[in-house]
Amino acid sequence: MPDRRIITLITDFGLSDVYAGVMRGVLHARAPDAVVVDLTHEIAPQDVFAAAFALEIAWRHFPAGTVHVVVVDPGVGTGRRRLAIAAQGHLFVGPDNGCLSAALPEEARGLRRPGGAYDERPAVLPASIVATAVENLALLSVTGPSMTFEGRDIFGPAAAFLAGGGRPDALGPPVNEAIAFPAFRAPPAAEGIDGRVIAVDRYGNLITDVVASDLPATPRFEVAGAHLTGISRTYAAASGPSAVVGSSGHVEIAVPGRSAAEILGAGPGDRVRVLR
Amino acid sequence: MPDRRIITLITDFGLSDVYAGVMRGVLHARAPDAVVVDLTHEIAPQDVFAAAFALEIAWRHFPAGTVHVVVVDPGVGTGRRRLAIAAQGHLFVGPDNGCLSAALPEEARGLRRPGGAYDERPAVLPASIVATAVENLALLSVTGPSMTFEGRDIFGPAAAFLAGGGRPDALGPPVNEAIAFPAFRAPPAAEGIDGRVIAVDRYGNLITDVVASDLPATPRFEVAGAHLTGISRTYAAASGPSAVVGSSGHVEIAVPGRSAAEILGAGPGDRVRVLR
Amino acid sequence: MPDRRIITLITDFGLSDVYAGVMRGVLHARAPDAVVVDLTHEIAPQDVFAAAFALEIAWRHFPAGTVHVVVVDPGVGTGRRRLAIAAQGHLFVGPDNGCLSAALPEEARGLRRPGGAYDERPAVLPASIVATAVENLALLSVTGPSMTFEGRDIFGPAAAFLAGGGRPDALGPPVNEAIAFPAFRAPPAAEGIDGRVIAVDRYGNLITDVVASDLPATPRFEVAGAHLTGISRTYAAASGPSAVVGSSGHVEIAVPGRSAAEILGAGPGDRVRVLR
Repeated sequence: MPDRRIITLITDFGLSDVYAGVMRGVLHARAPDAVVVDLTHEIAPQDVFAAAFALEIAWRHFPAGTVHVVVVDPGVGTGRRRLAIAAQGHLFVGPDNGCLSAALPEEARGLRRPGGAYDERPAVLPASIVATAVENLALLSVTGPSMTFEGRDIFGPAAAFLAGGGRPDALGPPVNEAIAFPAFRAPPAAEGIDGRVIAVDRYGNLITDVVASDLPATPRFEVAGAHLTGISRTYAAASGPSAVVGSSGHVEIAVPGRSAAEILGAGPGDRVRVLR
Repeated sequence: MPDRRIITLITDFGLSDVYAGVMRGVLHARAPDAVVVDLTHEIAPQDVFAAAFALEIAWRHFPAGTVHVVVVDPGVGTGRRRLAIAAQGHLFVGPDNGCLSAALPEEARGLRRPGGAYDERPAVLPASIVATAVENLALLSVTGPSMTFEGRDIFGPAAAFLAGGGRPDALGPPVNEAIAFPAFRAPPAAEGIDGRVIAVDRYGNLITDVVASDLPATPRFEVAGAHLTGISRTYAAASGPSAVVGSSGHVEIAVPGRSAAEILGAGPGDRVRVLR
Repeated sequence: MPDRRIITLITDFGLSDVYAGVMRGVLHARAPDAVVVDLTHEIAPQDVFAAAFALEIAWRHFPAGTVHVVVVDPGVGTGRRRLAIAAQGHLFVGPDNGCLSAALPEEARGLRRPGGAYDERPAVLPASIVATAVENLALLSVTGPSMTFEGRDIFGPAAAFLAGGGRPDALGPPVNEAIAFPAFRAPPAAEGIDGRVIAVDRYGNLITDVVASDLPATPRFEVAGAHLTGISRTYAAASGPSAVVGSSGHVEIAVPGRSAAEILGAGPGDRVRVLR
């Protein structure tokens, strides 16, 4: 394990309020040698799906042993479980609402139904994953946690405990099921791939759940009434809307120097068909 | 004292300009072992009150010895004093305009007048607080500071000096008075508590100056024409607008999964009555 | 060299997406002892000029040995060069599109034409500067970099290599020319100084390319139809729109407590004349 563990944060706290900074303070106070990396605090309020996808495209670029914390938690203070998960050499902490889906392998999550949306559902964890319900607050020296800010009072302390070398299974009883979104991978349909726009980035690129390795040699795309053929190697190479393999291996619909979302009038949930 | 002191920052510099980053650079260059935690740089331009309240809800979650810097400073470059304050085991640095109010105990600040607003006024410092006017620029090796960016040229170097173990009273002459806002605690009135909305967070929760420990057993609230009864334990527990005890001990008016500010059409300064 | 090198970041990735956080993760993983300072990730998408000016006003406030990375890169994945530059004791990494202009001395860049705009053009590097085309990806242990996120796959690893003490000239072949913007300094014209607004900060201050040291004793300014005389020492000292010497030595047009950009209806590119 590296000397200085990394703790990453994904929340919907925003940066105008001090909540993200307070959580960072808790982490530094309890895990003084850890490096805290803000992945984003600008997830739309309570958008659990967006948080789950953000984790998906980020976590694998960190070293083994990194602790990834996601706090997008409409059920804060209620009976929903809190999870600590050890998977693929990384650690994950957050509420059991699907935001930690990326910790689970695709096989455990399954694909979404063709034509369907991304619905959270319980997934049985494979034996390769150790998951724990975070309940042992005494171990974390937490007394009287707030019912409205568990990021500060529970998830932060739990992440610091793990970053300091604590064992996940000390945090509470084992669990063998977790709420998860289907794999971020469009299901094959009879006539091709039934994709969706699953995120729009700051440039207006439409990030889809079409995975590049699933594409035919010369794919044709239909999105928001537009028909595109082939794949551009770079954003700059095209002259109008085109499909590009993005940095996470997902197909993106992009327009050089402009916002594809604006030009096509498309956004999250919109259909992206790949015709064979 | 911990090996790695924490320096927290609250400013109105925003994150689009490089000012916050430059100030962080000054801190890292002068206090290489310190950890710098951005609490927020998104205080509305020159909103000293918002900065003071941000400090109030953040500082006590950091370890003793932390240096808290607030730079929301409409009077930058003018004759207004700069302060370094040692209080309750923490250190505070910023202009003498009320932004450091949280460093002062409630008794020194008093309550706002019933029916009144939050007006800055001089407060006599109790003997338990050591406060210094930051004037000894030679000690900080500062020559020719800018008249428009004291965060970079004076407050940052002063904070780094303190984080390195420097004594606050070396920075200049002692002071025994500071500009402060009244305590963030609604004054009791004949018929109940005369509260105000003092902040709106990213979720649209209305954070009030009604302190939970002041509430009667079954409080009734009147806010923006709406009447609410009782206290919900969590954001999710209610079905419409309701009062919740927030993570700072202040009563918040919230709506599950939605913005209370939008739904009620309420914001900072609006009255929140608690009827007994 | 200091034990803990600083790496600064200027990008147009924004803070809503995880790209900036992923790049930070790459830096921490590869240069565990470095301190990463976000200067800004909120450069307008693909605004290379704004990035170049952000670097200009920031870099000199960091210690010698700092590695400054700028990734505003409309040509990502294309044949445009990637540069590593050692200049004035600092290191600079980014695409060869003008975003690293600040690394070059004013003499190499020249002034913009009177009446003209800021056009990128090739500049011959003086002998005092060592510049390298970043091509040796094997040295960085980079295989199969993404064509759409070189910040993560190439610029980040190159910066980490330099922060770890690696020599810039190991990264590839030497180059003796780089794309640069003219010096951020208004050219003298017959009747005075022909200035431009080159940025607007969060407060609405109009930052100009008029350099304070070029001013006559009692300058008169003409901007957006307004006529201003003299220089205010501080933002607070004036009673309406006035010229102030900003913290980077550039003249700013400011209004105390308000936005000069809004009040004057002015923004980047607008003319600011200084009459003698």
